[in-house]
Amino acid sequence: MKTWEENVRKVVPYVPGEQPKVQNLIKLNTNENPYPPSPKVAEALKAIDVDCMRLYPDPAASVLVKGIADFYQLQEDQVFVGVGSDDVLAMIFMTFFNSKKPILFPDITYSFYDVWADMLRIPYETVPLTDDFTIRKEDYFRENGGIIFPNPNAPTGVELGMQDVEAIIKANPDVIVVVDEAYVDFGAASALPLIEKYDNLLVVQTFSKSRGMAGMRIGYAMGNPVLIKYLNDVKYSFNSYTMDQTTLALGAAAIADRAYFEETVHKVVETREWTKKELTKLGFVFGDSKANFIFASHPEIPAADLFAALREANIIVRYFNKPRIANYLRITIGTQEDMEKLIEFLKKYKK
Amino acid sequence: MKTWEENVRKVVPYVPGEQPKVQNLIKLNTNENPYPPSPKVAEALKAIDVDCMRLYPDPAASVLVKGIADFYQLQEDQVFVGVGSDDVLAMIFMTFFNSKKPILFPDITYSFYDVWADMLRIPYETVPLTDDFTIRKEDYFRENGGIIFPNPNAPTGVELGMQDVEAIIKANPDVIVVVDEAYVDFGAASALPLIEKYDNLLVVQTFSKSRGMAGMRIGYAMGNPVLIKYLNDVKYSFNSYTMDQTTLALGAAAIADRAYFEETVHKVVETREWTKKELTKLGFVFGDSKANFIFASHPEIPAADLFAALREANIIVRYFNKPRIANYLRITIGTQEDMEKLIEFLKKYKK
Repeated sequence: MKTWEENVRKVVPYVPGEQPKVQNLIKLNTNENPYPPSPKVAEALKAIDVDCMRLYPDPAASVLVKGIADFYQLQEDQVFVGVGSDDVLAMIFMTFFNSKKPILFPDITYSFYDVWADMLRIPYETVPLTDDFTIRKEDYFRENGGIIFPNPNAPTGVELGMQDVEAIIKANPDVIVVVDEAYVDFGAASALPLIEKYDNLLVVQTFSKSRGMAGMRIGYAMGNPVLIKYLNDVKYSFNSYTMDQTTLALGAAAIADRAYFEETVHKVVETREWTKKELTKLGFVFGDSKANFIFASHPEIPAADLFAALREANIIVRYFNKPRIANYLRITIGTQEDMEKLIEFLKKYKK
Repeated sequence: MKTWEENVRKVVPYVPGEQPKVQNLIKLNTNENPYPPSPKVAEALKAIDVDCMRLYPDPAASVLVKGIADFYQLQEDQVFVGVGSDDVLAMIFMTFFNSKKPILFPDITYSFYDVWADMLRIPYETVPLTDDFTIRKEDYFRENGGIIFPNPNAPTGVELGMQDVEAIIKANPDVIVVVDEAYVDFGAASALPLIEKYDNLLVVQTFSKSRGMAGMRIGYAMGNPVLIKYLNDVKYSFNSYTMDQTTLALGAAAIADRAYFEETVHKVVETREWTKKELTKLGFVFGDSKANFIFASHPEIPAADLFAALREANIIVRYFNKPRIANYLRITIGTQEDMEKLIEFLKKYKK
């Protein structure tokens, strides 16, 4: 080993879901929206003036921040934007999780939380979900350096009721509580109204799921202006200009089209509910997902085998070979047609 | 103060150059290219399929990495890309500057280095430039936790000869040496050939200056595959998907157009040399800038006064109110027409 290697920050990086380049794949593995972005996004793309690209973008990302603030009827100083919600969450970890006490998050959850904690040398403890994969609020009523959980949780899709969410925030006034709402638009209640009441709350959302723009990398946090100011200070100390010109223009166009957003979300939810019924008929078991995926297990079919068989049939889902969930598959909700093909395959596979 | 504020990472953020929205401004303050990106970029923009934006981008940014590797005749595993060179440099600081010994950089240099060091709690020492603003290589022949300097230096524009650059790299085999070449294409020699010889060298460049794409946020580091692997590990632990789909497509189109790149760089260099002559006639003094800016002082005109007068006339340059350089202005090279207007103004102002 070279001497300089002694001072390398060594990490076990997050492994993102596969992005295969195979044609005719039914891609149900990374919770993307099956519907494209709003037609307003295509219009905005056409309107981009390439000659302006020689100039730096607006470091405050104002057009996008204003669009998000307008959508949620917030002030602009209550909104922080970043390069996908992963960037937003990384900035939150850096900014707020600097206690010597461990931060808390569920044992079964978004698999990036422990990666950030490890990379940033933040102590953490994972809190086991109950056997039916729910968060027990009382488990978070103890000393800690900060709390983060997705709602609905990933990869389970299970929603924590708003009373329980509020109880956790209220019980922890001395630390920052982050509610990661990447999937909230597909039917769960948002903690957003609580940011007016609790100054220790950050609500994080993304354009990657319900707004069909994973390819453009837009995430955002909402909270009181003091929290947002601290976040922006760290962001400006890391990279002043994170949001490029096309992202700003296309993101602003997307968030302004509420009707399209509601229509496509509704379609995904309808397909999810149809898929749930069909999976139940086939003997699969799963929680009542409020997300754009279903986390399902089958008493007779090993998940790893099914994962491989689906892959063989050009249907790709997500399999986590981890304790407690090694017999589950996370199946993203695609178009109605995608899901009909999945169910057809499963019917044949079961025979 | 709230209890949670005790664990906030408090920073003094970098202040980016002003991005005013005034019309008819001659904007010579943030070293942007006066020429737009290659026409190939506009073509690539038209070819973007908005429907694909629902999908995550390629986390490996392969099309862009390959474009850069091809341009410099490197292997793809020798190239790392990020959201502007600021993102690349922040990742380098996080990945490689973890020694308890101080990192070294010049006292007069890119003003983000100390911001990153402060934010990441990295010890550092600044090394004074000589009185004529050159880097003295011997000053870097001592124990340290890493070295970074721009070449040409910013905001001075002064180039360090390649023999001295190599001497610094060679004298410091136990730490990572970063040569920040944001401005190298405007006439300085690049340390790039040395990456084959020294495994502790990273060369960082950007699309924001010589490639006229500040608005799209593309930076890159080149070095041996082991360094690039360590960098990517940290990047994947921070944000797996940093480069969005439009950035990848437009960046790849830009780097493929070598002829346009060379033509526009040549025009900037010609205008710079013309501007130098005119400024000299007016009594300004400055080093022999090899960048797309001139760092100039005048024995009779206080820089702060001139800065304000230029601003009043809708010509905006950069003024750093800092020790040793408080009587200098950093003037970006604009179009020939921009610079003629500047010189006209200065002639009248001097009377």
